[in-house]
This record gives sequence, C-alpha cells and structure tokens, in this order.
Amino acid sequence: MSTQRIILGIDPGLANTGWGIVAQQGSRLSCVAFGCITTQAEQDLAQRMKKIHDQIAAVIARFQPTCVGIETVWFGANAKSAFATGQARGAALVACAAENLTVEEFSPRQIKLAIVGTGTAEKEQVQYMVAKLLSLDALPEPDHAADALAAAICFTSYDSLERKQA
Amino acid sequence: MSTQRIILGIDPGLANTGWGIVAQQGSRLSCVAFGCITTQAEQDLAQRMKKIHDQIAAVIARFQPTCVGIETVWFGANAKSAFATGQARGAALVACAAENLTVEEFSPRQIKLAIVGTGTAEKEQVQYMVAKLLSLDALPEPDHAADALAAAICFTSYDSLERKQA
Repeated sequence: MSTQRIILGIDPGLANTGWGIVAQQGSRLSCVAFGCITTQAEQDLAQRMKKIHDQIAAVIARFQPTCVGIETVWFGANAKSAFATGQARGAALVACAAENLTVEEFSPRQIKLAIVGTGTAEKEQVQYMVAKLLSLDALPEPDHAADALAAAICFTSYDSLERKQA
Repeated sequence: MSTQRIILGIDPGLANTGWGIVAQQGSRLSCVAFGCITTQAEQDLAQRMKKIHDQIAAVIARFQPTCVGIETVWFGANAKSAFATGQARGAALVACAAENLTVEEFSPRQIKLAIVGTGTAEKEQVQYMVAKLLSLDALPEPDHAADALAAAICFTSYDSLERKQA
C-alpha cells in the first residue's frame, strides 16, 4: 500500500493568498483543508507580508505537508500587479523554505492543463474540476482557495509524469 | 543632545539584495556597515528567498536598526523583473516586520531627489553623493549596497521633511 503524501498548494496574492491541502494516496486524491489569507490595503506593507508568512507557516505546522505547488504570475500582467504578487509569493516561500519543503512552480497554463486538460480553460471550469477530482460536494470558495487546490493537484500530476518519464 | 538612530536601507533584488546601515545623530549621518546578499539562479527559488530573509534578519539582529528605507521598483520595468524583485522584497520585509521596524518605501526617483537633488540623476552620481554624505573614503560597492545606503539616507531626509511639515 502506498503511503499518504500531503501537498500544500498556494495561490499567492497581496490582498488574497489562497491555500489548500491535498492528501494523495496512490492515485487517490482528497481535500484536507483550504482557506484564504486576506490583507487590507490600508495595512502597513511589511505587516501584510508578515501575515501571509505567519499564516502559511501555521498551515504548514498544522497539516505537515512535504511538498508545495505554487502558481507563477502570467507575465502578460502589468509590472505593478506582478510586483505585488511577487512580494506575497516571497513571503509565502520563506515559510516553505524554513521547513525545507519541496517547492514546484507552475504557470496558470500548466495548472489548467493538468486540471481541465486544456491550457485555456475558464476559471469556473477549473473550480468545477477541482471539486470533482477531490470529491467535494460544493465548489471550493473563494476562487483563490480553488486555485491553490488546483496547484496542489498539479503537483501530483507533474510528479507522476516525471516518474513515467524516468 | 539628540539620540542616535540606526536606519537600515534595502535595495531588494532576486540575484543581489543590497543592504546598508546608517547612523543618524541630529543632522549628522555616518555609515555603520553595508553589504550585498547574492543568490544563484540555479538555486531552488524558495531557498533563495530563505537566504535573503535570513541574512536581512541577521543584519537586523547585529545592528539593531529601528527603521527601514526600501526601494520600490520602477513600474516601467517589465512584469518578469518586477515579479522577481517583488519576491526578494517580500522575503526581506518579512524579516523587518518580525522585529516591528518602521518601514518606508521610496521610488528610485524619490531616492535620487533626496540624495542628488534631481530625480533623474545617474547611478554614478548617486554613488558619489552617498560616499560624500556619509564621509566615506571610497565609493560604496557594489551598486546595490550604495543604493541601499541611499534608501537609508532618503529615510532620514523624508523624516525631517515630515517633521518640518508637522
């Protein structure tokens, strides 16, 4: 019997950082927990970074994942939003690195391809397939949490692809 | 007699994060230390974030600054480089927020204006004026360290401007 593996998915954002925990046993996936870390624009920037870092650290401490799937930004985005997302991502990655987790980055296209089978899928399709793949009764909300779960699922398919190629 | 204040300046970057420590006593500024944290492109991204975070945390522990001046990116930059810089900045800010330091952000233009008196100054002029304002015998190197010292000096002039207006 294959052992269970716990994967953390992160959809980083300055205002909203989605996170999701997926358990994998062989080819069977299940959803352990998900949520969204929100920070307010009127908060001090460094304190927003600290909140994202500390809450991701708390999720890691609670669910003990060994690996992480994280979204990269779409580089067609403008520099301002890429900069904001980058900062949130840096704060989250510090928490992951502190526990020596294996981190893989995926583009939105790679994630859509792994979840829906096409790189150009709509957000709603991704959300629907995440619920289906994880046998959830309802769509995971907010979007950021669904995207985080999608990144975690993407990690499992990326990994099995790697194994097949090896 | 005015008490001494210690200011940390940071010029964040994924490959090179400059840092500088400036001591301010009344209108007198002096350079305490400066350096540059480098990470390699072939390193794991999360480990690069951790290195930037941990080394900024070590600088804070050693020199005990109470406030921080940090550069923002120029938003004319492309999204890819803004994203990379943003990540480094997020990692550095987590270290600053952990110690509850007062953080002020400055654009490259604001920093040049504070140091050289014009927002369109060349890099070499900034470096030259940083050395002059801090009574250094040689130009601080690398550029990233000079830019970090410039951000720290900018904090002191921003602050005295605030006081004058109050």
